[in-house]
Amino acid sequence: MTRSTATAGDLPHLITLRDLAPAQILGLLDRAADLRQRFAAGPAPTALLDGRTVVNLFFEPSTRTRTSFELAARRLGATVVNFDIASSSTSKGETLEDTLATLEAMGCDAFVVRHKENGTPARLARHARRAAILNAGDGNHAHPTQGLLDALTIRDAKPRVGDLRVVICGDVRHSRVARSDAEVLAALGVRQIRLCGPAPLLPDPADFPGCALHDDFDEAIAGVDVVIMLRLQKERMASAMIADERDYYARYGLDPARLARAAAGAIVLHPGPMNRGIEIADEVADGAQSRILDQVANGVFVRMAALATLLDR
Amino acid sequence: MTRSTATAGDLPHLITLRDLAPAQILGLLDRAADLRQRFAAGPAPTALLDGRTVVNLFFEPSTRTRTSFELAARRLGATVVNFDIASSSTSKGETLEDTLATLEAMGCDAFVVRHKENGTPARLARHARRAAILNAGDGNHAHPTQGLLDALTIRDAKPRVGDLRVVICGDVRHSRVARSDAEVLAALGVRQIRLCGPAPLLPDPADFPGCALHDDFDEAIAGVDVVIMLRLQKERMASAMIADERDYYARYGLDPARLARAAAGAIVLHPGPMNRGIEIADEVADGAQSRILDQVANGVFVRMAALATLLDR
Amino acid sequence: MTRSTATAGDLPHLITLRDLAPAQILGLLDRAADLRQRFAAGPAPTALLDGRTVVNLFFEPSTRTRTSFELAARRLGATVVNFDIASSSTSKGETLEDTLATLEAMGCDAFVVRHKENGTPARLARHARRAAILNAGDGNHAHPTQGLLDALTIRDAKPRVGDLRVVICGDVRHSRVARSDAEVLAALGVRQIRLCGPAPLLPDPADFPGCALHDDFDEAIAGVDVVIMLRLQKERMASAMIADERDYYARYGLDPARLARAAAGAIVLHPGPMNRGIEIADEVADGAQSRILDQVANGVFVRMAALATLLDR
Repeated sequence: MTRSTATAGDLPHLITLRDLAPAQILGLLDRAADLRQRFAAGPAPTALLDGRTVVNLFFEPSTRTRTSFELAARRLGATVVNFDIASSSTSKGETLEDTLATLEAMGCDAFVVRHKENGTPARLARHARRAAILNAGDGNHAHPTQGLLDALTIRDAKPRVGDLRVVICGDVRHSRVARSDAEVLAALGVRQIRLCGPAPLLPDPADFPGCALHDDFDEAIAGVDVVIMLRLQKERMASAMIADERDYYARYGLDPARLARAAAGAIVLHPGPMNRGIEIADEVADGAQSRILDQVANGVFVRMAALATLLDR
Repeated sequence: MTRSTATAGDLPHLITLRDLAPAQILGLLDRAADLRQRFAAGPAPTALLDGRTVVNLFFEPSTRTRTSFELAARRLGATVVNFDIASSSTSKGETLEDTLATLEAMGCDAFVVRHKENGTPARLARHARRAAILNAGDGNHAHPTQGLLDALTIRDAKPRVGDLRVVICGDVRHSRVARSDAEVLAALGVRQIRLCGPAPLLPDPADFPGCALHDDFDEAIAGVDVVIMLRLQKERMASAMIADERDYYARYGLDPARLARAAAGAIVLHPGPMNRGIEIADEVADGAQSRILDQVANGVFVRMAALATLLDR
Repeated sequence: MTRSTATAGDLPHLITLRDLAPAQILGLLDRAADLRQRFAAGPAPTALLDGRTVVNLFFEPSTRTRTSFELAARRLGATVVNFDIASSSTSKGETLEDTLATLEAMGCDAFVVRHKENGTPARLARHARRAAILNAGDGNHAHPTQGLLDALTIRDAKPRVGDLRVVICGDVRHSRVARSDAEVLAALGVRQIRLCGPAPLLPDPADFPGCALHDDFDEAIAGVDVVIMLRLQKERMASAMIADERDYYARYGLDPARLARAAAGAIVLHPGPMNRGIEIADEVADGAQSRILDQVANGVFVRMAALATLLDR
């Protein structure tokens, strides 16, 4: 295992990848790859975070991401508390800052936060006394561990990252995944990032500096090495002037014919959960070019790396 | 402790007891009894499943069974994830197969599945790549660990299993417990199994080969060594042409007078939760012949045995 | 660390502080302080409760108290099961006593119980076979660990407890916190306890022997060393003939001007969650005299002491 000399440095919180220097991003990816290798031989729990407590503060439901963080923390020996918002003090009128201060006073060391409003994790980071805040997705702002796990998955399959052409297709405008992916891929120096979707779902170009915008998927996918498909929230279709799911699939679904327009050996990613038959065909989701389950596997290691880095102070 | 030479053999999943050879069933019972002895001296956690992850995938609420599996897994050193269906990807349109694949990719080793539809655990077992599936109850099809814990409880009290006459009383038609009990008791070679309940709640005889059907409980209980009472779902009463709970209790409730018709020293089982005063009298539930709390205690050891056997590959 | 010779003695359950001798209370406070010192150096998990199982049985939502007990138990090495009442057998008509017996049969060692009805934890304690019951708040009856953590916080700041004048202000009539605080402070021999609130929210004096009642907060706070503010349930305001939140704050809110009427160096406590701007001003809640986060921190250690004492049999 060669290891770059990059380190994640002194990172107090993980809110958005825009805050990180490329060397810090590389440091996190390398640490994730290291942890993956250590666990490859089978169960090999480390005690790195023994006695530390990680709180899952999920204001939006997400079993997938919550479970990934929970497994990451527990594999490192941490205690995990799943904070039940519905029955919490927050629902009794306590401010979110007081909830944070209370849990910090109980000895909690890290907070994994998902919230529908942009900026909630950053706001908590400003109020934290000593705990680390990890953004697990806020509004359409950022989802940094998703960006990191996508980057690790891409680097595994295509190590010459500087040569890559990447397309991100779907509801880019409302996607925190697209933002974090574009940030991490720019930091890693990919050759080109194309964003594709129905015009009403394309973002303000200022949010994605250096990226090209397309509303024709056949054109956007031509010659790319990496295809990142996004989940379509069904309630967005109307505003995107899409008639129905069949119409969306015809224009923006990834089927084998369309994938054949990408470069030979192109890989396919999707953050999940997938709408099969809407944004992606079964043959692609389950096909040889899919790296969707690798993303999931890498997600746990990236989150272990992030927790270890933030709590190893 | 004598131990039979029976082993559970190479068991990939535990879906129904019909799939198991008698030697495999005996192997699981012996392993449960072994684990019980090891833990009898007080807390003595084993590290057999250290670093392994068990997921509770409960699509029907059941704190009792879920907690029993959770304690079993944790006593063996495993990490347990309670998957919250309500806030899960499955509720966002993800297929159950994709949920399984995702959790497997995160490194989960076993899935304890409860579902209201017959066949869901078997369907997941066909799609599992390397994880073990344990059926914790599907529809009216099977509840194999309940069958095993009932068998262990009966064998503890009445080791000469070949001599036993057993009655199962209640809504046999809709009961997965009755099916798994009948299967395990047939495999252990009991002398006679009688099924008793209101005629509309008696099963198709083809589902219970070799069992005798009765709608008169006084007749069915005469001379038996084991009485297994089933929980009455109140919503079934109408279809069973039962006027009310008092009527049911008068005809099918187990009270001391009725229990006196069984063989001397007969034991009483109930899978819980009990409807006291509907299917069972307080004096019987709490009496000397009740083995109901032994069932609960044995449930944890049987589930430890099942998890250890399935994951010890 | 000097340690009093007090011990908690042979305590089977913790239901109300009225059951405890002063020496037992001092024993619990000393044990909490000991544990705090051991954990001060950083993560230092003890294995005192290794292999033991603690069940959180919360029939009223309370993430704060539940999490505090959960962390306390896990830091001592215990396994914690959060019993989900909504999907439990209790909701299927099982008696609470049967739920307790079932979980005891599964090997659970302690039950942390919160219930809206007075006396539920005591009732469970009468039915427990070998498990310990810890009251985490029942109706307006008792919240013994809150009383203990308040006592520890007060003793830390003001070791000459016999000299102290204390005021408890708010809806004293409906407060289990007020009752447990008054009991523990009386046992520790404080000089004076004053109770203050709108007349309809003042308690029957027989419930608080030896305490003085006031409906004028400016008068009640004069010269006290400790101010314990209670949370106002908004639905109580009407019955208390309070016009609105501003009216309450004007008469019973703790702001810097009012706090200045207390003795120099007086400390402020609040059990949380706080209604800022209703019963307490931001400047006080976050000010130098506030011990509110110390209460939270001490809560975990008091609960560790209680669990260790009850289970160390």
